Amino acid sequence: MSQPFTPTPRTRVVRESDRGVYDRETVYSILDEGFLCHVGFLADGQPFVIPTSYGRKDANLYIHGSAASRMLRQIKEGLPVCVTVTLLDGLVLARSVFNHSMNYRSVVILGKAKLVEDPAEKLEALRLLSEHIIPGRWDDARQPNERELKATSVLRLPIEEFSAKVRTGPPIDDEEDYSFPTWAGVVPLAMAAGAPINDPRLDATRDAPPYVISYSRRHS
Amino acid sequence: MSQPFTPTPRTRVVRESDRGVYDRETVYSILDEGFLCHVGFLADGQPFVIPTSYGRKDANLYIHGSAASRMLRQIKEGLPVCVTVTLLDGLVLARSVFNHSMNYRSVVILGKAKLVEDPAEKLEALRLLSEHIIPGRWDDARQPNERELKATSVLRLPIEEFSAKVRTGPPIDDEEDYSFPTWAGVVPLAMAAGAPINDPRLDATRDAPPYVISYSRRHS
Repeated sequence: MSQPFTPTPRTRVVRESDRGVYDRETVYSILDEGFLCHVGFLADGQPFVIPTSYGRKDANLYIHGSAASRMLRQIKEGLPVCVTVTLLDGLVLARSVFNHSMNYRSVVILGKAKLVEDPAEKLEALRLLSEHIIPGRWDDARQPNERELKATSVLRLPIEEFSAKVRTGPPIDDEEDYSFPTWAGVVPLAMAAGAPINDPRLDATRDAPPYVISYSRRHS
Repeated sequence: MSQPFTPTPRTRVVRESDRGVYDRETVYSILDEGFLCHVGFLADGQPFVIPTSYGRKDANLYIHGSAASRMLRQIKEGLPVCVTVTLLDGLVLARSVFNHSMNYRSVVILGKAKLVEDPAEKLEALRLLSEHIIPGRWDDARQPNERELKATSVLRLPIEEFSAKVRTGPPIDDEEDYSFPTWAGVVPLAMAAGAPINDPRLDATRDAPPYVISYSRRHS
């Protein structure tokens, strides 16, 4: 385990505080298994939550800006955001409704997202984003030209103020409920990839590459 | 299709506006297939985004309040929230990096979430939440007692100001890229349930019920 991060009052897990996790190793492993985040920000006094993809390099998260135009309108000196990544691992069925739960791993990062302005960092961030979502694809695709780079925005969020929350394992019932006559256990859930679907305009002699055929988010 | 809702300036889809969908039928079908939402709200000037489960009845969304204690501290007269539900359907691999995309269906609801105070509505909302996540379970489990009901908070959010965004189908490349020598198509993604895992303390003669064995989010 890496050095635990000391949570701030804003990131300390309040509910079910035993599920709070603050070490970077755990947080990075969750961020690296997921690729969809929900970005929360304020616009005209109203909170918005927008799903978008992300990549990571060391202690920086890169967000594809084109998914969040409302966000970008006002981001000049850094927009306060909350980026949340949630991996759902299962439904936890206890004997009592009250003790039903989910197995999950989630990360919350607070901070100011800033536009990446340096062209080299932007291109590298786009490569990281692409390789984060589907490793191997960047080198196989036609890479961005200058016009496309200009049309794309990338935000950088330092991973400085964060926490994770993790629940694993079987249901925990009240002792007097263990004799209640019902099934109890976990229904595992996971994001699964299906057989690739060729583009109708694909040259029929071209096979899907290994990174497509064996696509999986589990990193061992 | 039901009568399209007229989006407000806050819910009109700005980026890729052709993906905007505003009819209740589509929005409800997305909400009914998912069960995990991300709730965005403001606390001490900072946006927070918290994952939690939900249920729906007609034009009301019910959120399990216990997942969001920061939220509940300040909810007396209704807390402005954004609730976002995202279903990820696939990775869209175009020939150019720039035209890579995802197939997804997402819903954004803006409004004020209010605490459900009436005990009968609260119990019914908890039943809806449970049945939304795993239909059939409520009647098989030990139902909430008075102490548990008091320890549980439920929020009601009217589904009044909302929009959906949907992308389906193959990649769309720039015409001049179709000859680029790479595979293109879609990697389908879906949340899949695995074989149920018995609670270690389960009576070994008890089989998992059909709603556990054949668990699926797809409603046909």
